[in-house]
Amino acid sequence: MDANPILATFTRGNWTENRHRGAFCIAHANGDVIASAGDIERAIFPRSAIKALQALPIFETGADTRFAMDDEALALACASHYGEPEHVRVARTMLERAELTVDDLECGAHPPTSPAARKALKAAGEAPSPLHNNCSGKHAGMLSVARALGIDTKGYVTREHAVQKRVRAAVEAVLDTPMTEHKCGTDGCSIPTWAAPLKSFARGFARMATGEGLSAPMAAASQRLFDAATAHPFLIAGTEAFDTEAMTVFRGRLMIKIGAEGVFCGALRDRGLGFALKCDDGNPKAATAMIAGLLAAVADPDAEQAAVLAKFSRQVSTNWRGIEVGVLEATDGVRVTL
Amino acid sequence: MDANPILATFTRGNWTENRHRGAFCIAHANGDVIASAGDIERAIFPRSAIKALQALPIFETGADTRFAMDDEALALACASHYGEPEHVRVARTMLERAELTVDDLECGAHPPTSPAARKALKAAGEAPSPLHNNCSGKHAGMLSVARALGIDTKGYVTREHAVQKRVRAAVEAVLDTPMTEHKCGTDGCSIPTWAAPLKSFARGFARMATGEGLSAPMAAASQRLFDAATAHPFLIAGTEAFDTEAMTVFRGRLMIKIGAEGVFCGALRDRGLGFALKCDDGNPKAATAMIAGLLAAVADPDAEQAAVLAKFSRQVSTNWRGIEVGVLEATDGVRVTL
Repeated sequence: MDANPILATFTRGNWTENRHRGAFCIAHANGDVIASAGDIERAIFPRSAIKALQALPIFETGADTRFAMDDEALALACASHYGEPEHVRVARTMLERAELTVDDLECGAHPPTSPAARKALKAAGEAPSPLHNNCSGKHAGMLSVARALGIDTKGYVTREHAVQKRVRAAVEAVLDTPMTEHKCGTDGCSIPTWAAPLKSFARGFARMATGEGLSAPMAAASQRLFDAATAHPFLIAGTEAFDTEAMTVFRGRLMIKIGAEGVFCGALRDRGLGFALKCDDGNPKAATAMIAGLLAAVADPDAEQAAVLAKFSRQVSTNWRGIEVGVLEATDGVRVTL
Repeated sequence: MDANPILATFTRGNWTENRHRGAFCIAHANGDVIASAGDIERAIFPRSAIKALQALPIFETGADTRFAMDDEALALACASHYGEPEHVRVARTMLERAELTVDDLECGAHPPTSPAARKALKAAGEAPSPLHNNCSGKHAGMLSVARALGIDTKGYVTREHAVQKRVRAAVEAVLDTPMTEHKCGTDGCSIPTWAAPLKSFARGFARMATGEGLSAPMAAASQRLFDAATAHPFLIAGTEAFDTEAMTVFRGRLMIKIGAEGVFCGALRDRGLGFALKCDDGNPKAATAMIAGLLAAVADPDAEQAAVLAKFSRQVSTNWRGIEVGVLEATDGVRVTL
C-alpha cells in the first residue's frame, strides 16, 4: 500500500518544516464512498470520536428516562469537555440523578483542558477531580447504564463488564462491522477502544444521521443524541474548541467529534453523509487543519461558517516573543468536491 | 520522490495507532554516506540541533578568551537547557563576564523546560525570565560576540546584524553549503534558521568531529566545543533529557543535540562520523525513539549505554490512572549496520 497523502504541512518562513499524512472518507449510509483520500480500509482507533455511539446503551436500557437525562446530559455523554464550570455542573447532576458520586467514576482525574478553568482551580487551591476529566460525561452515562441494569457499577470500564459489552454491541451495530480482540487497546479514560476500518466510521455516522440500516429504537436514539449534541455545542468541548465553534455556526447541520491522536468523525446531517479522518502521526492540530479544510470544501459553508473553518484550517504560530514564525495548514489534498 | 520510511510507531494495545516517518543520514567528513534512510537531499530546518555550529564565531572574534568563557559557558552556548538553577547560574555568569544583563537577551522568556524548576519558580512567586529560555546560553554567546566586535548588541537576533552574518558564515563553512533566503525562517528564540539538505548536517558534524575540511582555527574551535559539551552533558539539556543521559554514559564518544520539530544532529566522535535525523511530522518523542534506536544499532553501546538507548527507543505510555496503554518505539527501519 502506498503512503497516505500529505494533508497538512507546517511552513516556517518560506520552507516546509513538517508534513502530516492522513486518510479521510465521506460516505453514504449504504456504504457508498463519495470522496476519500488514503487507505480507508486501514483499521484505526476512533478513540473519543465515537462517544455518540458509545452513548446508545443509555436508551436501550432506559437510563435516559429513569434518570431524567435531558439534552444537556446527553450532549455531555458525547463530549470530550474542557472541564469548565458548566461541564462539571452537568456531570455532577448526571451522577446525582443516578444516585452516584464522583467516587464511582473510574476515568481518573486530570486538570481541566481549558487553561482558564485550570488556572481557576489552582487559584482555589483545589485538586483536579474525575469530574474535570474530559470523559466524565461519558462515564456518568456508562454508570447510569449499570444502574439502569441494576448491576454493580464497579469495574464498568473493563471489557468483561456488562456495560462495556453493551457499548461494544452498540458500536458494532452502528458500524455493521464486528470488533475483534486482535485490534483492541485501552483508552486514556481506561475503557476499551477497538480499531475498525476508517470507512466503517464514516458509514456509521451516516447511518446515525439518517437512521438507515439501524433498528427503529437505535435510529431514534441516534437522532436524539445528534440533536442534543448540536444544540449544546459548548458542552461537547469548550471555549475556543474547534468542535464547539464549528457546531455553533453550523446550527444543527453538522455533527463533529474529535478523538485523541488525530481523529475526527461526524456527519453532514442535512445531506445524510458521514465522515471520518485520521492523521497518521496523531497530531491533533494537524488533524484539525485537515478536517477544517475538508469541511470548507464539502460542507457548503456560508460566510460565518467559512470564517470559522478558515481559522482552524490555517493556524498561525508565534514564537516566545510573539513573532509570527509559521503556518500549519491543510493541503490541496483535502479540497475535494462531492 | 517516495515517502520517507516509517521509523517509529505507536502501538495501542495490540494495534498500530500512529506512524512517524523520517529520514536519517550517517556520513564521513568527505561526504561519503555510509548509512541512510529516506530523502537525505531534502532541505530541513536544523533548529537548535546546530547550536555548536552557531557558537563558532565566539572563537573567531576572540570572545572566548576576552570574556573568560570556560567549558561550562561553551557547553551552555551549545545547549537547549531545561532552565534548572545550574543552567541559569551559568547563563548569568556568561552575561556578567561580558558586562551584559538579562535585559540584553532578545530570546524572550518562557517557563523552565524542567517540571521541577518550573514548580520551584512558581512556588517562589517568580516569573520566568529570558535566563530560563532554553536558548539563553546560545544568546549569551551571541551577545558576547557582539561585545567582542565592539558593536551595538541591539537587534543581534536579526538577519542583518553582524552577529547573525557571522553565524551564517560559520554554518556555511562547516556545511560547505551556501544558505539561501529562499529557505529561511525564524526560530523560536527569534534568530534566523536556514534549511539545508539533511546530509549536509551529517557531513558537517563529521567535519567538526574530525576537523577535516575545516580551517585550522575552526577545527580547533570545533574540538573545544565538542569537548566542552560532552564533558558537561547536564548543561546541554537537563534532568532526564535524552541528550544529557546519552552523552553522560557515552563519556565523550558521542556528541548529540536535539532540535525542535523532530531533529537530531551529532557525531560518533571516536569513529569520525556525523549523523542527522528529521522526523517528518516534527514529533520530538518519535524523533527521540528513532535516534535512540539508530544509535543502539550503530554506536557499539556497552550495557550501560544500551540501557539508556533502550529506555528512549521504546517509550511506554500510561493513561490517567497509570495503566500502560501503549508503546512508542523505533521500527526496524533504523536498525542499520555500518
